[in-house]
Formats: sequence, structure tokens, C-alpha cells
Amino acid sequence: MNNGFRNEKPIGVFDSGLGGLTALSELRRLMPNEDIVYFGDSARIPYGTKSPSVIKKFALQDTRFLLSKGVKAILVACGTVSSNCLNEVYEEAGVSVVGVIEAAAKRAAEIAKGGNGLVAVLGTNATVNSGAFEKALNGFGISEVISVACPMFVPLVENWHPSVDDGATNAIVSEYLLPIAAKKPSAVILGCTHYPLLEEVIKKYLPESVLISSGAVAAEELKALVSKLSIENSNGGATEFYTSGGAEMFVKNAGRFLKDMKVEAAEQVDIERFE
Amino acid sequence: MNNGFRNEKPIGVFDSGLGGLTALSELRRLMPNEDIVYFGDSARIPYGTKSPSVIKKFALQDTRFLLSKGVKAILVACGTVSSNCLNEVYEEAGVSVVGVIEAAAKRAAEIAKGGNGLVAVLGTNATVNSGAFEKALNGFGISEVISVACPMFVPLVENWHPSVDDGATNAIVSEYLLPIAAKKPSAVILGCTHYPLLEEVIKKYLPESVLISSGAVAAEELKALVSKLSIENSNGGATEFYTSGGAEMFVKNAGRFLKDMKVEAAEQVDIERFE
Repeated sequence: MNNGFRNEKPIGVFDSGLGGLTALSELRRLMPNEDIVYFGDSARIPYGTKSPSVIKKFALQDTRFLLSKGVKAILVACGTVSSNCLNEVYEEAGVSVVGVIEAAAKRAAEIAKGGNGLVAVLGTNATVNSGAFEKALNGFGISEVISVACPMFVPLVENWHPSVDDGATNAIVSEYLLPIAAKKPSAVILGCTHYPLLEEVIKKYLPESVLISSGAVAAEELKALVSKLSIENSNGGATEFYTSGGAEMFVKNAGRFLKDMKVEAAEQVDIERFE
Repeated sequence: MNNGFRNEKPIGVFDSGLGGLTALSELRRLMPNEDIVYFGDSARIPYGTKSPSVIKKFALQDTRFLLSKGVKAILVACGTVSSNCLNEVYEEAGVSVVGVIEAAAKRAAEIAKGGNGLVAVLGTNATVNSGAFEKALNGFGISEVISVACPMFVPLVENWHPSVDDGATNAIVSEYLLPIAAKKPSAVILGCTHYPLLEEVIKKYLPESVLISSGAVAAEELKALVSKLSIENSNGGATEFYTSGGAEMFVKNAGRFLKDMKVEAAEQVDIERFE
């Protein structure tokens, strides 16, 4: 029982676009009394195709924007930033930082150690090529990893109607997942924040019990960290949305990334200003 | 019969990435004795989601790079630039400039006037939302236009194996095209330089005779212009490739956008330098 607020500062979440809203959704559900500030860098999406120095520059600008809102902790919902420069974000921020890669790898390792030790990772081309999940999983004692690039998943979520009955969706999802399903991994990381929106279809090919959503796990990790540091707020609950792209477009498209919540308004930010 | 070269300067082609290579392919075929310089701005793709001022800045940088190679004419293979700021490119260039939108609209109008007057346009979300093809078609006396956004076509080309027998590809292509086919348009513009790579599948749903590839038509238009200006070269035939992204990646991925030619090497360009 919490008898009063301890730290009323907000929690910050950033992503290269809208995908991180699936992590925000989870954070909102887990921490109903926290204020949360979300920044989506929609004007500069995707990060995955940029050079490491550009990714770092963008990540630090995103971090500085959140710091300008006085955040007490940051969830990096962007897989590219989490794998490329999480340490730099942490050094810049001076507050607690949780990335999606390490949190999901840790959880997958725990589960796989209780099973057959095999972990599968589904990710974008950039994430799979980076080898970041494999490296993190190795660090947690997992040596058997299957990584599968699923480059059609984001387009399906962004540009199609990926329902459980849709022919194109099932053809694509089954082609990616059936070879993995045959190997019966103990844990499968949904290594991109867009993928939870395909979960209903993915569950047709892989058992729900093995699926790990990287955004959701990072949200749980952040909650645990805030609790450990005793910096919870029991007095908040507001969510603010900022984007580098068009605010109207953000509001219009954000809906389907969010469970049980709506975006009423978003504010456009000149992110290049946060040098 | 051409008895000697007249103007040995190269022709320039630029695009936001690799898609413009389908136009280059056609240009290479039509003008075997010209030297051609291609620039693909892969580091900053896609242009379609950027603001008009950013698109203009990028387009002028691309133009200045080609001018630094001494080009005598420019084919703008990027639909976003063609629809947003072709005039600015022309003013900067001081040489002949052909864009994909106007060339394809002109050809479609000619064909439709000999038919039922109905033109369909297939394009990306950005191209369809810009209304650029409709406006150009209106200018050529065509009032009946159906525009259909096909946002899954580029992902299919870039990330999938879009063969005539593939289930997912057929499910997606048929959903976009069957409603159009029912209206029997006289001309259908493939309004994105990626789409010719889906032509075999598209031909299952629309008659080949109505299909107009915007890149191929722009190549024909450029050939006619060079001939009219009497600036042909009968002494060349080389093709040079430049990209703002990784040169290796460019060479690796360029192949499938090119008919009957190979990319042996590409050179990386610091495009931001062309202020």
C-alpha cells in the first residue's frame, strides 16, 4: 500500500515512430498512477537504415527532449537504439534507462533455461543483422539462438489488414514461422514493437506460452526498476504525446497501436533543436 | 544515321533509392550510346514521408551532384520529387529535365482519349495523396481518374518473392486491382518505379495493353528531347552508379531492378556536401 506520491516526475518513452506505443500501452496498464511522456520520431523513421553515428545523434536528441520534460526514467522502445547506443543514452540521461533488447533477452533466457535452451528471435532485417539479441542472449547464458528476419511484418501492420483470416497475412506469417515452429523453441522473442499487433496470427503458428513481447517485458522491467528505486508516483496518470512528424497524422494512426486507450492530441516537436 | 558524336556529356538520373533503376534500365536500352550517371539517395529514402521543404532541399542536392558530373539532361525518377518540385530542379539545373509524373500522364491521356477516357493510377500513399497524377491528367484533358494507393507493392518488391504463383502476392495484388479491372480503364499508370517489378503479376489482373510504366515513358520522353535538341552522343555507353548509402549494399540490391545489365561497382557520395 502506497500512502502518497514519492516522485511526481514523468516517465519518458521514445521510439522512431508509432511502434513504441505498444510498449507504452503496457506501461500505462502496469503503472496507472504514473505520468508518461511519449516521443515518436515519425519524421525521421526508420532508424534501422541509418548509419551508427546518425542513429546515436537521433537517440541523444530524443533523450534530451524527454529530459526537457523532466523525466525520472526512460524506456527506449526503439530496437535500433537499444542495440546500437543504449549506453550513450544512459550516459546522456543520468536517469534509469531500460531498452527493449536486454529486457527481452533476459526474460527469454530465464524461460529457455527451464526448457530446451533454444530461443528464437523475430526481428527486422536491421535488428537481425545487428546480432544484438544473440549477443544479449549469449550474455545471459543462452548459446542456441535462431534469428529470423521478418521484413514483411511491419508493412503488414502499417499498410494491410492483418487479421487471423486474411490470406496474404497467413501466407507470409506461416512462411516465416513454420520452420521455427518445427524446432520447438522454449521462447520466441517478438523483437520489434510492431509485432504484438500480429500476435493473434502468430499464435496460430507458435504456442502463446513461448511468445515474449520485447516492449511489454521492457515495461515490466521499468516498473520493477522504479519500484526498486522508490521513485513511484501515486498521484499521476496523464499521458502526453509528442512527435517530430505531423501531429494530426500521429493521432490518426496511433489508435491501432494502443490497447484500451485513445490519443486525443499530440504536439509536434522540432527535434533537431535538441542539440 | 548519326555520323559522329555531338555532345559527349552524360545524362543524369536520380531517385530516392533503387526504384529509379527500372527507368535507368529503359534509358540504357533506348540510348545505348549515351553515358549515364545514376544517383540513388538510399541513405535518406523514403522521400514521400518528408516535408515539402526537406524534399526540395534533397532534390536540389541530388541535382547539384549530377551537375558536378557535367550532365546535359536529367531524368527525375523519383515520383515524390516529380510531383513536388520539378520546376525548382529545372531552375537549378539549367539543362533539360524530365519527370516521371508528367511524362506518364501525357502518355496515359493520349491512350485514354482514343478509348473510354478513364485512367487509373496506382501509386504509393504519398503519391496518391498528393493528387499529382490527377492534376497532370486534368491538364491533359482527362477528367475521369481512379487513384488507388497500393502501399504493399514496395514491401513486396523489396522484402518478398513476388512471383506470379506466390499466394501472398496474388492475394494483395488482386485485392488492389480487381475493383479497377471491373471498371475497364483505357490506361493504367504504374505510378511508382518499383511497380514494373510486379508487372508479371499485375498482368494477371489487368490487360498488358493498358499498362504504362512511368519510368519507361519518362525514358522515352528524355530520348525524344535529347534528339530534338540534337545533343546525342554516339560515342558513349558507360553507366556510373553513385549512392548516398552503402556502396556494397547498393551493388548487392541493384540487380533485381535492372534488366539485361549488371552493376559492377558503385561509389558512395556525401550528398549533404552539395549545398
